Amino acid sequence: MFEFRLQRTAGLARAGVLSLPHGDVETPAFMPVGTHAVVRGLSANDVRRTGAQIILGNTYHLHLRPGEDVIHQMGGLNRFTTWDRPMLTDSGGFQVFSLHGLRRIAEHGVEFQSHIDGTSRVLTPEGAMGIQARLGADVAMAFDHVVPGQSSPEAACEGMERTLRWLDRCKARHLELAGQQDSGTGEQQALWPIIQGGIHDQLRMRSLEGTLERGPWTGIAIGGLSVGEPKPVMHRILEHLEPGLPREIPRYLMGVGFPADLLEGIARGVDLFDCVAATRNGRHGTAWLPAGRVNVKGAALKGSVEPLDPTCDCETCTTYPRGYLRHLFVVEDMLGLRLISIHNIRFLVRLGEQARAHILNATFDGWSRDWLREHYGGTT
Amino acid sequence: MFEFRLQRTAGLARAGVLSLPHGDVETPAFMPVGTHAVVRGLSANDVRRTGAQIILGNTYHLHLRPGEDVIHQMGGLNRFTTWDRPMLTDSGGFQVFSLHGLRRIAEHGVEFQSHIDGTSRVLTPEGAMGIQARLGADVAMAFDHVVPGQSSPEAACEGMERTLRWLDRCKARHLELAGQQDSGTGEQQALWPIIQGGIHDQLRMRSLEGTLERGPWTGIAIGGLSVGEPKPVMHRILEHLEPGLPREIPRYLMGVGFPADLLEGIARGVDLFDCVAATRNGRHGTAWLPAGRVNVKGAALKGSVEPLDPTCDCETCTTYPRGYLRHLFVVEDMLGLRLISIHNIRFLVRLGEQARAHILNATFDGWSRDWLREHYGGTT
Repeated sequence: MFEFRLQRTAGLARAGVLSLPHGDVETPAFMPVGTHAVVRGLSANDVRRTGAQIILGNTYHLHLRPGEDVIHQMGGLNRFTTWDRPMLTDSGGFQVFSLHGLRRIAEHGVEFQSHIDGTSRVLTPEGAMGIQARLGADVAMAFDHVVPGQSSPEAACEGMERTLRWLDRCKARHLELAGQQDSGTGEQQALWPIIQGGIHDQLRMRSLEGTLERGPWTGIAIGGLSVGEPKPVMHRILEHLEPGLPREIPRYLMGVGFPADLLEGIARGVDLFDCVAATRNGRHGTAWLPAGRVNVKGAALKGSVEPLDPTCDCETCTTYPRGYLRHLFVVEDMLGLRLISIHNIRFLVRLGEQARAHILNATFDGWSRDWLREHYGGTT
Repeated sequence: MFEFRLQRTAGLARAGVLSLPHGDVETPAFMPVGTHAVVRGLSANDVRRTGAQIILGNTYHLHLRPGEDVIHQMGGLNRFTTWDRPMLTDSGGFQVFSLHGLRRIAEHGVEFQSHIDGTSRVLTPEGAMGIQARLGADVAMAFDHVVPGQSSPEAACEGMERTLRWLDRCKARHLELAGQQDSGTGEQQALWPIIQGGIHDQLRMRSLEGTLERGPWTGIAIGGLSVGEPKPVMHRILEHLEPGLPREIPRYLMGVGFPADLLEGIARGVDLFDCVAATRNGRHGTAWLPAGRVNVKGAALKGSVEPLDPTCDCETCTTYPRGYLRHLFVVEDMLGLRLISIHNIRFLVRLGEQARAHILNATFDGWSRDWLREHYGGTT
């Protein structure tokens, strides 16, 4: 269990298979985000039909509503959501550190005010482990101290070092909980650590080294990117970290997932991605296409009987004419948001599938270069 | 085409099969409402899975957005929506007469202000026929003058008589358009008249007689009920009209469709129903159950692993635990609205199926009495 089988590489790009309690995940792979135990507006069947192999839940949000005890009593996240494939829960670190003015950070943990009812709560490394154990996803993430993208070396260093100290506490608590797991759902859960260090190469390397010293791990995440820093900086950090990342475990780039980001990340050795952009853009009527994007509300789609993306095999593109999708946005029917979210998720899932096929075929390099050129409209 | 085969009766209740260009409709049947060419929030596949055999579109709303010409160019309502089964369009009469203060009624037609952009528009009997011909549903409804449920005999008489005069004009225009149909989609469309007359038995009978004089028709509708009058009054009018309604064509009770209304209507000889209550209640978190209704947001559902309605075979009830449905409403995810709408529609569609089976089995009377008793919680 939690074994990662690396099948083939193409440059730094990797194709592999990750075995989790609820099934295998072929990588590279995009993981849709189900913040509140639901991928916004989509049923578990909708998500299954996109080809998604694993979805996320969020510790912070699920702790507040409905609470981890409710989900545990109902048999864990998989039974709660009826999603029977692998799941991963984020630790809540990113969320509580985003609550500006509503939180106080100390070595013990983070005190914050619930954005729902204003009640005062505390999230600690131990608490985040306890909540995630009760949620019962295949993979739990360490509780980390996230700093903004443009943080000074001092602030980034503080967050990075605290993340390492907290990792010790997460690991200790995770081991304790693992010993008690027979009385719970009986299913195993992996703990994955998160590399921090802002945009500073040296801090990132120290975070990586400190993380590996605390191992072994069955997966490793890179956090605190795509939080305001320029894209080339993110690429540089990925390139800087890559030689030090263990080959034999999957690498998960957190919160990253516009189409081009997937290919840029895969080319730099990343295996797993998650991002809310697919559903957020979908709700706003922005659909991703191989040649960029389209505003589904735009007048150009009025009356069109063409599919949204003729190259796409998703439910939306194989069923509905563009003119009908536009109409749904004009009359503000929620079916429109759902259909574009389905397309955008399928778009990213399929991009992972295509990248994987090209890695296995030793054609990744040329294909991804061509793909990015078309996507950027010839400007790259 | 448009043939109605009456299979069996049980008292006044009838089981039959209506043949329409896009397929057969077994009656009694509930027809979900797709006001804007979409059953609120549901995909065509969602609606198909409820067992619905025919859905509605609305002339007023589709004339405003996207306009009948757009839909006609895209191949008609069926291709526009990807719904491949029978459809019926309401004439827009009910909508324009509901625009209090925004409309001026004359013998020629109704001048009204679009609720979308405030532009001045005119809907006439001829115009309503022209729009519906371009929308291309199997059945078009006559343009009628609807009066409120508590209208005086004078007001109800005026609306009823105007509805008859307008029926002459609708029929003439419909015949003209039928002659031109070969140049259009090539599909036939039926025109069904609407009986008006408020809550006044004599006016209702005059409306029925005047309507039949202008026939023959392949179906007949009863409009202007469930618009504020007490339920017993609606039942009385149905009973009063029934002996005069032709046996050989389907009877459609417009805008009526709470669960008990279906059984009360079927028991009084009605074959077809439509109502937005299923989806409107669904959006507000009210689910229909055999024993009444349940507020899905209620605390009683928290943590429950039971299905919403253990006797129901819909996607929602066979898939999701109550506690998850409640959670979706608490976190305001639109999936919740959709899942309850699916259940409520299936509930009414299935009620039609059950009533039909009991009529064919000669067990309708006892069954419907028991069903109503359980639904009203023993108070009926």
